[in-house]
Amino acid sequence: MDVSTLAQSVIAGDRRALARAITLVESAREDHRTQARALVAAVAKGGRQALRIGLSGTPGVGKSTFIESFGCFLTAQGLRVAVLAVDPSSARSGGSILGDKTRMERLSRDPLAFIRPSPSQTHLGGVARRTREAVTLCEAAGYDVVLIETVGVGQSETMVAEMCDLFLLLLAPAGGDELQGVKRGIMEMADLILVNKADGDLKPAALRTQADYAGALRLLRHRPQDPEGFPKAMTVSALEEAGLAQVWSEITTLAEWRRAEGHWDSRRAAQARHWFEEEVRQGLLASLARDPLRGLMGQLGEAVGQGRRTPDEAAAELLALLGR
Amino acid sequence: MDVSTLAQSVIAGDRRALARAITLVESAREDHRTQARALVAAVAKGGRQALRIGLSGTPGVGKSTFIESFGCFLTAQGLRVAVLAVDPSSARSGGSILGDKTRMERLSRDPLAFIRPSPSQTHLGGVARRTREAVTLCEAAGYDVVLIETVGVGQSETMVAEMCDLFLLLLAPAGGDELQGVKRGIMEMADLILVNKADGDLKPAALRTQADYAGALRLLRHRPQDPEGFPKAMTVSALEEAGLAQVWSEITTLAEWRRAEGHWDSRRAAQARHWFEEEVRQGLLASLARDPLRGLMGQLGEAVGQGRRTPDEAAAELLALLGR
Repeated sequence: MDVSTLAQSVIAGDRRALARAITLVESAREDHRTQARALVAAVAKGGRQALRIGLSGTPGVGKSTFIESFGCFLTAQGLRVAVLAVDPSSARSGGSILGDKTRMERLSRDPLAFIRPSPSQTHLGGVARRTREAVTLCEAAGYDVVLIETVGVGQSETMVAEMCDLFLLLLAPAGGDELQGVKRGIMEMADLILVNKADGDLKPAALRTQADYAGALRLLRHRPQDPEGFPKAMTVSALEEAGLAQVWSEITTLAEWRRAEGHWDSRRAAQARHWFEEEVRQGLLASLARDPLRGLMGQLGEAVGQGRRTPDEAAAELLALLGR
Repeated sequence: MDVSTLAQSVIAGDRRALARAITLVESAREDHRTQARALVAAVAKGGRQALRIGLSGTPGVGKSTFIESFGCFLTAQGLRVAVLAVDPSSARSGGSILGDKTRMERLSRDPLAFIRPSPSQTHLGGVARRTREAVTLCEAAGYDVVLIETVGVGQSETMVAEMCDLFLLLLAPAGGDELQGVKRGIMEMADLILVNKADGDLKPAALRTQADYAGALRLLRHRPQDPEGFPKAMTVSALEEAGLAQVWSEITTLAEWRRAEGHWDSRRAAQARHWFEEEVRQGLLASLARDPLRGLMGQLGEAVGQGRRTPDEAAAELLALLGR
């Protein structure tokens, strides 16, 4: 299938075409890259926008159950939902989130839902590009909500935050003095903190944890892109499907406010410029890795780490040899 | 004075030579840059190390008073203290921290102390390089503690955290429901949170604020570079010079633990490599700004922000034209 036919099928809402298109943007092959770039540019012209929601949470907080419940809640209202997973660690396990699709049994059978597991990728830059392009493809295919799921590993949250309209952090209730283990810096990105498992014996602990985070959020500076009262900490029970309507109501309140105040468009424009500059930067650095001088760069990095050269001296030497 | 004579005078502890050396590293002139690079490389060979302490806090928390009190506390123990200021905003005000030197009256007269106000610089990359090189010069000059002060503006904390061994965050007591306005992400970097003004009427509020932050810190994940109980929140009174010995005791405990566990050396090595790679990256990007294609890069960035081009398409076009 040529690129323009594939683009038309994606826009027409053909699920198999969408899956094939994502496979194309996941490929690292030079000729596939060229096709993928043309495909994404072609479908982006339509200008369809979904609500892009980032979701982070460490293993064990019930992320799959939450996506299953929340996704089904949304499709029950007639909304079309796409789920994309970002898991830079899956390079080791060979696609660890693949298993989740079987755990999202109801949602994966739902005709209004589209679930795409994380590909095996070693390079975070590659994961970012693939995910960004997959989001554009899902938007073009007419999905109303694109959920971008990530595990709390490395830089992946920052990356996801740079490509979504709002960001959810899912936590488990803490028992007594037990530490939550929220990575510092994540609170910076969260628009909603959801304490899951607010059911059965864990309900009191969930409420306590929610109150703790609500308190911690109040200690942070107000961001211009937030209406009064945001970011917010809430409890949910993915298992009992409790609190989902409230979560959706807070999400739409926030999204509508940001649209009305112009934050939505300016954030998307800033994100697009960020990724352009990042691609140029990555491209320049990648060209270094192919450069005959790459061996020298490694040696200079070693020497700098050992204190035998200063960073600036070593950088100046390398740049001079590069003719830059 | 030639570079090697200047290097010798800096190493001999000549304060005027140190001041002159810092002026040299602050210059953006091409020939000065070459000399500065040689100077820093020459003094770095000695391998002297100071304890590099980063300090952040928004205006009004009593940062100058704290530095004055804490600096004098350290010199009273015979320690030599250098204070460097990083204020990217001073480009507008023409060196806003300059005024602070007069507010640190006692410390600036102390023969064991060396205070250097923030230069007027527009470019954060330039501020980073200057500060890093000034730190190396102060270490070579035999200072035991180098305090790197920054205001809570933009990326300056992240930058300072990447060049210090440990990081202090100074806060004012919050009254009642008043918000602290701690920038999200800063808690990630802090090793000690110091609630200042724990004196007079503000003492109860300072204790409450300290307890709030101690609670918030407990919700965050343990970092491998921290012994049990760190990061920590404490109260101090810079005005009454209370709590300074405890702060110093926590700092030395933390520093000794990190040295013993190998975190100190590995952090310094990682920081040096980071700055090398950052310099190469900046150098490549700066060469773009001088490139005949710079106009095109601006236009492409515009087009991407407006959604007329995809980030990857625009980046590929630019990189192809750059021959990269």
